[in-house]
Amino acid sequence: MAPQHAAKRPQHFAEETVGSLMDFDFICVPESYTVGETFKYLRKNVHGKANIHYSYVIDPLGVLVGVLSLRQLLGAEEDQVLQDIMSPATLRLDYELDQEQAAKIFQDCDLVTLPVVDSNGRMIGVLHVDEMMDVMQQEATEDIHKMASISVDDDEEDKGLLESSFGWLYKKRIGWLVILVFVNLLSGAGIASYEDLLGKYLHIVFFLPLLIASGGNAGSQSTTLVIRAMAVGDVTVKDWFKVISKEALVSFALGLTMAVAISLIGYYRGNAYNVGAETAMIVAIAMVVVVMFGSLLGAILPFIFRLFKLDPATASTPLITSICDIAGVFIYLGTASLFLVFD
Amino acid sequence: MAPQHAAKRPQHFAEETVGSLMDFDFICVPESYTVGETFKYLRKNVHGKANIHYSYVIDPLGVLVGVLSLRQLLGAEEDQVLQDIMSPATLRLDYELDQEQAAKIFQDCDLVTLPVVDSNGRMIGVLHVDEMMDVMQQEATEDIHKMASISVDDDEEDKGLLESSFGWLYKKRIGWLVILVFVNLLSGAGIASYEDLLGKYLHIVFFLPLLIASGGNAGSQSTTLVIRAMAVGDVTVKDWFKVISKEALVSFALGLTMAVAISLIGYYRGNAYNVGAETAMIVAIAMVVVVMFGSLLGAILPFIFRLFKLDPATASTPLITSICDIAGVFIYLGTASLFLVFD
Repeated sequence: MAPQHAAKRPQHFAEETVGSLMDFDFICVPESYTVGETFKYLRKNVHGKANIHYSYVIDPLGVLVGVLSLRQLLGAEEDQVLQDIMSPATLRLDYELDQEQAAKIFQDCDLVTLPVVDSNGRMIGVLHVDEMMDVMQQEATEDIHKMASISVDDDEEDKGLLESSFGWLYKKRIGWLVILVFVNLLSGAGIASYEDLLGKYLHIVFFLPLLIASGGNAGSQSTTLVIRAMAVGDVTVKDWFKVISKEALVSFALGLTMAVAISLIGYYRGNAYNVGAETAMIVAIAMVVVVMFGSLLGAILPFIFRLFKLDPATASTPLITSICDIAGVFIYLGTASLFLVFD
Repeated sequence: MAPQHAAKRPQHFAEETVGSLMDFDFICVPESYTVGETFKYLRKNVHGKANIHYSYVIDPLGVLVGVLSLRQLLGAEEDQVLQDIMSPATLRLDYELDQEQAAKIFQDCDLVTLPVVDSNGRMIGVLHVDEMMDVMQQEATEDIHKMASISVDDDEEDKGLLESSFGWLYKKRIGWLVILVFVNLLSGAGIASYEDLLGKYLHIVFFLPLLIASGGNAGSQSTTLVIRAMAVGDVTVKDWFKVISKEALVSFALGLTMAVAISLIGYYRGNAYNVGAETAMIVAIAMVVVVMFGSLLGAILPFIFRLFKLDPATASTPLITSICDIAGVFIYLGTASLFLVFD
C-alpha cells in the first residue's frame, strides 16, 4: 500500500474550531513500513512540505494509530517496523473542537504540532502552535473589549483600531452606552426619592460621588480578577464559594481602610450642620457596605453569567460600576436618613 | 574540530528576558561539515535531546552563521558541505531582548524555535514558541489587571486567584482604591461649589449620576481600545493624531445619540420647576461634552503614559472614570448655571 493522505476531508469547518485553522501539509505513513522504507519515502516527499517534524502513522483504514518524531526515526535501526517504535497518538484534536480549548491543550502539552482527526479517528490534518498564538491574542482582545462594555461580534473580524471604520466603532460602542444611560437614570431616581433629606443636609451630596464610585472601583477589581482567572483556567464554576468567601474578607478590609480615610473629612464637613459625628459615622458605614457590595457583585456576576452559558466577560466594569452607583445611592442616603433627623 | 556548544553562557539573565526563558538543549554543527558527517553526528547525539528540528551552523569562533532544518538535510546529497546548503540565520534573538518583544517576533515569523545569541553573535541557546504562549498569557493578565486598577508587581509571581493570600490581594488592590478616594473627593468639592444652584433646582441632581457615569463609560471604552491596540502592536505612538481625531468624531456621534435619549426626560423633570426647555438643553449639551471629554481623555492618556515610558495600561478604567466624574460635575453644573437663574 502506498502512503497517502488518509481520509476525505469533511466539507465544512465551523468558524473558531480546530478544523478552520488546521493545515493539510503533513506526512502519513502506514504502520507496516520499516524505518528504511520510511526514510526513502521522506527523502522523496520532503520537497514542498514544511512540516516534517513528526510523521503520523495510520492503519489501513486511515485511522491515526501513532506518531513518530524524526528523532525517533534517526535513533532507530533501518529494519525496525514503525508499529514497534512509534509512540501512541494519545494527544489528538477533534476537528470540531473550539479553538480556545485547543490553545489550552497546546499550553499544557509542550508540543508544537498536534494531529487532527475526524469522528472516526481518521487523520485529516495537523494544527500548529503558532496558530494558537493568534487565537490567544484574539480571545484576550475579545475579553478585554467585553470587559469595557464594547460589543464583540464573533462573526466579524476585528480589523484593528486604525483600520476600522467610523460606523463599525460607533456600532460596537453605542449599544451598551445607551443601556447604561437607563441603568444610570435609576441612580437619579434614587436621589430624587431622598429630596427632603438632601434639601435639609446638602453637605451629604458632597460625599455622594465618592461613595458611589468606590463601590464601582472595588467591583471593577474583583470582577476583573475573577473573569481573568476563569479565562486562563485558574478558577472554575465549582470554586465559587471559595472565591466569594475570600472576596468577602478582602473587601471588608478594603472598605474599612477607605472608611478611615474619609470619616475625618465627614466629621469636618458635617460640623457645619452640627452633625459632625453623625456624618462621620454615615460615610464610614456606607463606605464599608458599598465596597463590600461592589466587590461581591463583581465576584459573583461572572459565575452567574457562566451558569447561564454567557461569557463571564459580559460582567463589564461599566456594568458593575453602574449597578454599584444605584446601590450606592440607596445604601448611602438610606444610612444617612437613619442617622439624620429631617421632615 | 569537534562540534560543541559554542560559547560560554553569560552568568546572569534578567527576569522577563529571552535569556531567562531559553533552552540549552540544541544542536550545533560546524559549517565545514558535510551532510553525511552531520547525519552521523546527529545519529550519535539525538538521544536525550528533545529539539533537533533545526541544527545551527557555527563558524570556528562559535558565531551563528546558518540554520539547517532536517528537511533541508534529508533533501541534500551526502557529500554537500553545510556552508553551501544552509539558510542564513537572519532571525536570531539577543539574550537581553524583552520577552514580550520576542513573542511578537514569533507571531510574525511562523517558526517554532529561534536561536539566541550573545552580544558577539555567538550561539548560546534556543527559545521555543511554547514559552511564548505563557508569556502572552501573562502579559495579557498584567494588562487586564492594570486596566482595572489592580497593582502589578513585576518581581512577584501571580499565583492565581485561588492560591493567592488575603494579604497579597489586599496589597494589590488598596493602593489605587485609596488614591481614587481622594480623586473622587474632588467631585464632591465640585458639587459643593454649586450648592446655591442645587439648593434652588434640586431636580438637577437627578441627572448628575447619569452624566458623570456616561463620560466614564465612554472613556473606559476608548482607553481600552487604545491600550489593547498598543499591546498587540496595531497602534504606535506616531498614530496618535489619527486615533484622537477619529475618536473625536465617533465620540461626538455617541454623545449626540445619548443626549437624544435623555433630553426628553430632562424636559419632563424640569417642567416641575418651570424650566423644562432649559433642563432639556442643559442635559443634552452636558451629555455631548462629557462623553467627548471622557472618550478623548481615554484615548489620549495611554499615549501620554507611553511618552513618559510608563505602561499605557496604567490608564485604568477606574482612573478614567474618576477623572470623568470630576469633569462631569463641572461640565454639567457649569452648563446648568449658564441656563438657570439663581442667587
